[in-house]
Amino acid sequence: MHKNKPLILITNDDGINAPGIRNLISVMNECGEVWVVAPDKGQSAMGHAITVNSTLHIEEINSGDEPQKEFSCSGTPADCVKIAISELLPRTPDLCVSGINHGSNSAINVIYSGTMSAAIEAGMEGVASIGFSLLDYSDNANFEHCKPFVKKIVQNTLENGLPNGVILNVNIPKLPYDEIKGVKICRQAKATWEEEFDKRIDPRGRTYFWLTGKFVNLDKGEDTDEWALENSYVSIVPVQYDLTAYHAIQELNSWDND
Amino acid sequence: MHKNKPLILITNDDGINAPGIRNLISVMNECGEVWVVAPDKGQSAMGHAITVNSTLHIEEINSGDEPQKEFSCSGTPADCVKIAISELLPRTPDLCVSGINHGSNSAINVIYSGTMSAAIEAGMEGVASIGFSLLDYSDNANFEHCKPFVKKIVQNTLENGLPNGVILNVNIPKLPYDEIKGVKICRQAKATWEEEFDKRIDPRGRTYFWLTGKFVNLDKGEDTDEWALENSYVSIVPVQYDLTAYHAIQELNSWDND
Repeated sequence: MHKNKPLILITNDDGINAPGIRNLISVMNECGEVWVVAPDKGQSAMGHAITVNSTLHIEEINSGDEPQKEFSCSGTPADCVKIAISELLPRTPDLCVSGINHGSNSAINVIYSGTMSAAIEAGMEGVASIGFSLLDYSDNANFEHCKPFVKKIVQNTLENGLPNGVILNVNIPKLPYDEIKGVKICRQAKATWEEEFDKRIDPRGRTYFWLTGKFVNLDKGEDTDEWALENSYVSIVPVQYDLTAYHAIQELNSWDND
Repeated sequence: MHKNKPLILITNDDGINAPGIRNLISVMNECGEVWVVAPDKGQSAMGHAITVNSTLHIEEINSGDEPQKEFSCSGTPADCVKIAISELLPRTPDLCVSGINHGSNSAINVIYSGTMSAAIEAGMEGVASIGFSLLDYSDNANFEHCKPFVKKIVQNTLENGLPNGVILNVNIPKLPYDEIKGVKICRQAKATWEEEFDKRIDPRGRTYFWLTGKFVNLDKGEDTDEWALENSYVSIVPVQYDLTAYHAIQELNSWDND
């Protein structure tokens, strides 16, 4: 069955009505049998949050003539993947794709990203999984040039599988298709956010804050996702959920631990 | 200044009034100048969520005769660390400690953990950082036996520093002090959650779900945090936020990417 018609789970963190996921659905309908389980509202910057202290609601959506099945979910992106695989889909999917996110998830942003947490959740459940993001935050971003890259990367993944415990983090420049030079396999750039809190006073005289910040790339390497994106390439970073810093074990063993 | 009196930021994900953080504060007051910035309510399983679509509120709390400064924050654990370092503390802290969490953050739980996301956030900002968890979910858990281990690990960290980009994930068994055999430096066990959704019908006839699940350890290695905890050791896993799966780069480069 897999070889004829792979079962593809689609989710995202911008919500089921976001243009990014609608574009992803239309490409994936060319690649397999599509089931969509996505948040009923925007869930950006949710990281790997899951809903343990409240209930989850699922609603099946009638998407008209289109072939895919669709469900909206009251939970986080990671919740969507859990409930899709455990309750909704007819069998374990052959692939999970998350996105296309409105905005970059390169470098350290992978840690905050709901798009990537959904993809990682699927990976943790043994499903080949990819998160896609476009470097354009706007609601009316143009996703047309993303489609050939998404399709190629999905086809490669379905054909070759992914190494155990590995998820792909794909970022796509905001450029016309003809200006994109190709695809690069990268490492996550060592970049950081310099926080700035915008401090304000509310109408009742109380202080509150908006989190803002400046993204700073401290990494001059030419093998990073930031370098690829700045140089007009699509970046693919293989991501893992084994967070062990193996290189640090020896040093910590030299401590007086007892 | 560091050598005489290190500046220590404390946060958690169970909220500023949880017994776990109150116990952590009391030990840390013996180790340095303590500033507490913690969520005003429980934020378990928040992963690395941050608050970008709503405002953040901070309230200074008068903790009576105790020496520490305390602030409650309306945001997530990661928000607490960002606003503490950026707005509240007199200078960058020498150490951030998060916890003591009510419940384990071993193995794959590190991914969902608000306790660890706060610690990782501090690590990302260049601060030596440790998350502590006790294997006891109950509100009235006894943290007394944790204190000597917490103090020793903190002193080691202040003396030796941590390798660049590395955060410590410390889990402590629920056992009397005398029955704990020591401390082990470990890797993250390859364990997983088998999801189970408890499906119910609300009073208006609509279906809803509670996320539950069974933790399954698939890893027979004796160098894992799960093995250490099952064998009465405190586990320390060095954790990193560079998620790149370096071992997968070569295989992905063999794909037809263009």
